[in-house]
Amino acid sequence: MSTKNLIFSVLLIFVPISLLSHYVFHWGELVQFALACLAILPLAAWMGTATEELAVVVGPSLGGLLNATFGNAAELIIAIAALRSGLVEVVKASLTGSIIGNLLLVMGLSMLLGGLRYKEQSFQPVLARVNASAMNLAVIALLLPTAVNYTSSGISEPLMQKLSVAVAIVLMVVYVLTLLFSMKTHSYLYDVGVADLKGEAGTTHDEEHSDHKPNPVLWTAVLLGATTFIALESEILVGSLEVATSKLGLTELFTGVILLPIIGNAAENVAAVVVAIKNKMDLSVSVSLGASMQVALFVAPILVLAGLILHQPMDLNFNPFEVVAVAVAVLIANSISSDGKSNWLEGVLLLATYAILGIAFFYHPVIEAAVS
Amino acid sequence: MSTKNLIFSVLLIFVPISLLSHYVFHWGELVQFALACLAILPLAAWMGTATEELAVVVGPSLGGLLNATFGNAAELIIAIAALRSGLVEVVKASLTGSIIGNLLLVMGLSMLLGGLRYKEQSFQPVLARVNASAMNLAVIALLLPTAVNYTSSGISEPLMQKLSVAVAIVLMVVYVLTLLFSMKTHSYLYDVGVADLKGEAGTTHDEEHSDHKPNPVLWTAVLLGATTFIALESEILVGSLEVATSKLGLTELFTGVILLPIIGNAAENVAAVVVAIKNKMDLSVSVSLGASMQVALFVAPILVLAGLILHQPMDLNFNPFEVVAVAVAVLIANSISSDGKSNWLEGVLLLATYAILGIAFFYHPVIEAAVS
Amino acid sequence: MSTKNLIFSVLLIFVPISLLSHYVFHWGELVQFALACLAILPLAAWMGTATEELAVVVGPSLGGLLNATFGNAAELIIAIAALRSGLVEVVKASLTGSIIGNLLLVMGLSMLLGGLRYKEQSFQPVLARVNASAMNLAVIALLLPTAVNYTSSGISEPLMQKLSVAVAIVLMVVYVLTLLFSMKTHSYLYDVGVADLKGEAGTTHDEEHSDHKPNPVLWTAVLLGATTFIALESEILVGSLEVATSKLGLTELFTGVILLPIIGNAAENVAAVVVAIKNKMDLSVSVSLGASMQVALFVAPILVLAGLILHQPMDLNFNPFEVVAVAVAVLIANSISSDGKSNWLEGVLLLATYAILGIAFFYHPVIEAAVS
Repeated sequence: MSTKNLIFSVLLIFVPISLLSHYVFHWGELVQFALACLAILPLAAWMGTATEELAVVVGPSLGGLLNATFGNAAELIIAIAALRSGLVEVVKASLTGSIIGNLLLVMGLSMLLGGLRYKEQSFQPVLARVNASAMNLAVIALLLPTAVNYTSSGISEPLMQKLSVAVAIVLMVVYVLTLLFSMKTHSYLYDVGVADLKGEAGTTHDEEHSDHKPNPVLWTAVLLGATTFIALESEILVGSLEVATSKLGLTELFTGVILLPIIGNAAENVAAVVVAIKNKMDLSVSVSLGASMQVALFVAPILVLAGLILHQPMDLNFNPFEVVAVAVAVLIANSISSDGKSNWLEGVLLLATYAILGIAFFYHPVIEAAVS
Repeated sequence: MSTKNLIFSVLLIFVPISLLSHYVFHWGELVQFALACLAILPLAAWMGTATEELAVVVGPSLGGLLNATFGNAAELIIAIAALRSGLVEVVKASLTGSIIGNLLLVMGLSMLLGGLRYKEQSFQPVLARVNASAMNLAVIALLLPTAVNYTSSGISEPLMQKLSVAVAIVLMVVYVLTLLFSMKTHSYLYDVGVADLKGEAGTTHDEEHSDHKPNPVLWTAVLLGATTFIALESEILVGSLEVATSKLGLTELFTGVILLPIIGNAAENVAAVVVAIKNKMDLSVSVSLGASMQVALFVAPILVLAGLILHQPMDLNFNPFEVVAVAVAVLIANSISSDGKSNWLEGVLLLATYAILGIAFFYHPVIEAAVS
Repeated sequence: MSTKNLIFSVLLIFVPISLLSHYVFHWGELVQFALACLAILPLAAWMGTATEELAVVVGPSLGGLLNATFGNAAELIIAIAALRSGLVEVVKASLTGSIIGNLLLVMGLSMLLGGLRYKEQSFQPVLARVNASAMNLAVIALLLPTAVNYTSSGISEPLMQKLSVAVAIVLMVVYVLTLLFSMKTHSYLYDVGVADLKGEAGTTHDEEHSDHKPNPVLWTAVLLGATTFIALESEILVGSLEVATSKLGLTELFTGVILLPIIGNAAENVAAVVVAIKNKMDLSVSVSLGASMQVALFVAPILVLAGLILHQPMDLNFNPFEVVAVAVAVLIANSISSDGKSNWLEGVLLLATYAILGIAFFYHPVIEAAVS
């Protein structure tokens, strides 16, 4: 068992502690919030591992689909729990934060730590470019509903929701076509990364790589178990979030943009950084770019449709500052990744951008993104 | 005679029908509008063909100038007719739409349909880059007057017009210098495209290429005839536009941005897509990038000056959402074309952007771009 | 003595004339302003020369630091004098103008004049790209405080200053790391330029290059003398600025953005253009990109901290139009420099952008960038 898996196994102890704190001891919201965060970390990690193992069982093409669909399951479960509690602005903020975090924090740390060991690291620029164009589209899609509201005298909520649903459908079609592109028609462009991901980010089979046969029953059980507990823990997290963060002096915007995405994506983030240090920059960049693309093209549209079903006003009308932040993150990430090379200074530039955005979100006096 | 020419010859039947519907039968505005659209399609196509044929007669350098000046004649005639009727916002919207349509719809269709036949297509990135920089300038020029108005407490209409005229003059100087660059000092960069354009997009001489000697008298007559009828048809189109589009439930903004540019540019658009399918991507990309550049650097400034003469408040103060749309279109078109390669997914991304913009324009509740 | 040095020596005559006009004759503000401008030109030039000569004496690593720190001394002295007089908006405008001027005017003139002699010039694209990413960060940092203010209901001045100080600290850390990158860990990327800069932009030793040993006492005296007189002249410039520019019908914004940066940077600007004409494009581009980077990452943060000490409300909350202008300048400069090649048309595009921005600033009706 790898060091990482050992840590994530030990952290599972927080699952029962968190449940007890909520259902039995009724401790304060701040404690409940912190424990739920700590409990979700290992659950999300094991969920990712189980998905990957099952992907090996079902074969490459179905497995790719499995990965693409369940890769963001932890994030989706938390977001839907928050949506059901009416925390619409927090959900939107966590989308923004997930994109920003993957592009700046994860890619920044990867390039910095990788760059401290290797003078120059390189990766396939083609991959970065296809991703960059898809990210541009995603940003545009998230930007436009906000821009429509902002450049008119304001549009009504039903109209905004219609517009958001239409945009969401276009994004999901593009997402499916992107999968078709990467798995069928142009899969050769992506070959390098996927093979390595199994060996590196995978967890139990570093040595006996070739003989590895995951047990489908075991991993399905793990997946179902982790999913159930994340649902439970998400409720605790969401229930205690408002009181806890206001006690910490944080705005909902800051919590959603900076805090939640770090919790939901911790495991993947660690994996991306670890492979960067092992000089597998191709893989590291495609994980961080791919993750932010999935959030924009898959998670965001799903949540808009979920909002429709849950009768929550979940639309794509963001706080304009969130739009600025995402645009800025995509701009600098594209500018840095487009040449297929990286060094430690480029990592620093990404992290500095993340720091400045974090500072700005911390000081930002939130106003409701008004829809008349 | 090629299939395309046959179609455009048959479509000429709508010219007399449209004139009869307006002058004799006084049919409803919706019918008049539709017939005028159908009549303008072949007229614009024949006008383009006549310009190209005459360009062959007068030789490469004068011919290039002829093409550059009369290439957008149909568009200009419609716009000036609209301007005379005081439809200033429609004219501005059609400029926006023409740029967006060329960059996203035409280039997107070319890359998609070309990419369905060829796994990867390539074109000269140098060409794309020079065009990209010129397009950036054009966007900036169209953006700035709007930004001045938006970031101040508002500026007076006479001041806005002065500012717009000054910017228009700079753009026209740049346009002339761009012609000088592409035809004189760095013509070798453009050589590939022009020769092929004659053979491909040209209409009557696919077989007997080398012996082809266009009849200058014939084609001058065609040019004059087409020009006269487009003027006539433009008046019908413009006269019926307001009533017809409101009956269809469309805003002026949507009509100007989406509908009009498709009608005015249909022939060139078809040509760009056809050559892409024949794997002449160089030519296809330079047609679509070149056309949007001509609109921004030549048509827009001319219309500002025409507004001065016609005493219409035609300035470069656009609806801010139009500015967002153009910026977004240029951004993603540059991002996709900068590497000199294309595949079907890149075509999809461009078309998806166009679709999202179209949806946003459809739902956009227009307010007058206020100038105090 | 080179022609350039001769000119800058003759211009020194304006130093005593300017001092007499202010302290003895009490001439009108317009005359005082013009004379102070003419006096600062040669002082700034000699200050730059003295810094370079002393850099030769102390050796490459310490010399690089000296250059990086004192390279913008003239600009800093003028800005601090303006800050002490409470001309906060002029100081901010001169930061904007300095960035824009280096990217568009200086690089534009270099590419145009160089391009008139050489069909195509090339430079290290790696260098341009690292600089481009750093510039993107800088723009983002300057943009965000303004965006926070603009996308909320407005934030209080103390909060804005806290935010600005935090951002300024991040920028200065990045600046120090950039120096570490360019002088230590990846100095080989920058080698070409520095060696040539000595020979070309340096002033007295074109022939006897190898034997050249600058006199440290002499040049320290020159540096101290020039610094003293610039301080004196800055006071005259700043004292007469408001009355003089309003007599000329110019807004403070225009003065700060267009006029002041030209005066403060004249010598470096001439140097960048001269080396471009000598086909040392590497050097020319790195001077203009480097100078704008220094302004954004070093001068701007220093001035924010100086504002704290001088109890002046110097923050990073710019007029939104300034943010648009800087963003636009960085966008087109990056787009043009990213391929490592230049021609005269690219120079024209940069100059046209500068012209359009100048026109827009000229017509911009300034309103106070309101902080509630």
